[in-house]
Amino acid sequence: MKLYITNKNYSSWSMRPWVLMHTLELPFEEVMVSLDLRPGSAFYQTLAQLGLISKVPVLVLDDGTVVNDSLAIVETLAELYPERGIWPRHAAARARARSLCAQMHAGFGALRQHCPMNVEADLRALGPALLQAQAGVRADLEHLYALWEDALARSGGPYLFGEFCAADAFFAPVVMRLTRYGLPIPAALSPYVQTLEHNAGVRAWVQAALLERQFVPEDEPYRRSASDTPKL
Amino acid sequence: MKLYITNKNYSSWSMRPWVLMHTLELPFEEVMVSLDLRPGSAFYQTLAQLGLISKVPVLVLDDGTVVNDSLAIVETLAELYPERGIWPRHAAARARARSLCAQMHAGFGALRQHCPMNVEADLRALGPALLQAQAGVRADLEHLYALWEDALARSGGPYLFGEFCAADAFFAPVVMRLTRYGLPIPAALSPYVQTLEHNAGVRAWVQAALLERQFVPEDEPYRRSASDTPKL
Ligand SMILES: N[C@@H](CCC(=O)N[C@@H](CS)C(=O)NCC(=O)O)C(=O)O
Ligand SMILES: N[C@@H](CCC(=O)N[C@@H](CS)C(=O)NCC(=O)O)C(=O)O
Repeated sequence: MKLYITNKNYSSWSMRPWVLMHTLELPFEEVMVSLDLRPGSAFYQTLAQLGLISKVPVLVLDDGTVVNDSLAIVETLAELYPERGIWPRHAAARARARSLCAQMHAGFGALRQHCPMNVEADLRALGPALLQAQAGVRADLEHLYALWEDALARSGGPYLFGEFCAADAFFAPVVMRLTRYGLPIPAALSPYVQTLEHNAGVRAWVQAALLERQFVPEDEPYRRSASDTPKL
Repeated sequence: MKLYITNKNYSSWSMRPWVLMHTLELPFEEVMVSLDLRPGSAFYQTLAQLGLISKVPVLVLDDGTVVNDSLAIVETLAELYPERGIWPRHAAARARARSLCAQMHAGFGALRQHCPMNVEADLRALGPALLQAQAGVRADLEHLYALWEDALARSGGPYLFGEFCAADAFFAPVVMRLTRYGLPIPAALSPYVQTLEHNAGVRAWVQAALLERQFVPEDEPYRRSASDTPKL
């Protein structure tokens, strides 16, 4: 299988299936396509060759089937590898894990918009002011923490459903946002945040992200260069 | 099973699982919770009783499991009723159907924002001006039509994957937007749009929507009342 992704520093959507596949040791070849949103760029040419107009991640199966969208990739992998624990084994927990992933997939728009993922950046000076200025970010965090608390209370941790599963992979980019922007994390949830930060897949992703040197202005609302002091 | 939904006139997210379950004749009891976004409203009280902070649709299984989010509901139903054709039977088609649904779930933000679903309203006067003013809506339509054309070319129609499946249920609210806002539909796609409009589940939903009389200002960017002339 080939997994097409884009810059590890910025691509929260690419991070989800990559962290999942890396952590569960599914065999795959990574194809890195540098983020370049200009029409006709190599980025869009690569996608066009796959028959797509836009957006990575894309999983290409050995039979040539092209699966785009991170959540569709996860469901397709769960069918191909039913014994790997991509979803929790118990049906009720599986339904709840899918609820979390699908809500993350369609929602949390304010957190996404105002705190785009940026692995190498230290934006901790911005968090408090962002929180104060953006009611939507406050509401998203409140909702997020309620979801995590509920799942962890049921499972006992360390991951949302006990063992690592796709839901944790879906929240790995969120943990990047929380820590990079210095957003407040309730004490009860800090063990979960730390568990995700120390997860092997997350660490491998972060290490590779820190080696990248491309500055993508579309994903940098608060800096003009990597050495700039971040400002709201 | 109980499916909690909100106003059929406005709730595009509720429409998806309802149309799916109705069309495939899955047994369920509908619980209508009137849309009321004021804190502490009966809407939020009902959700709180289910242990949720926000958002319908919600499916409550016979064992009490609470599944919220329309896409998680679809995947859970597909596990419970594997023989009902919720997803296409062929693995490659199933992966593509999931790609379409997941892309719809996370994307098409401009179409969603500028053309909120409003079943009873005649907003056809707005479509052309909206299209001209909103590059995002133009891009969303172009992307949507490319996805539909690709699927229909592979399957031969009449539905995206031949027979009706979850992907069609996911695009039923989109067809409501296209027709209500008078957005241009390529001739090659009009048979598909008509197929969806004549689908039994869609027709039952529309009929019920037309009987509702609640005007929800949050979902009415272009009118102040149901008898108002719509304006951008
Ligand atoms: N719903 C998609 C979203 C993917 C997405 O937005 N990817 C970004 C990179 S992180 C992209 O490819 N952007 C290029 C474009 O929008 O044309 C998924 O979950 O895979
Ligand atoms: N991703 C969710 C979105 C559902 C959604 O936004 N539902 C709206 C009604 S159409 C809602 O319940 N809004 C109330 C709120 O946001 O508190 C899904 O697919 O079910």
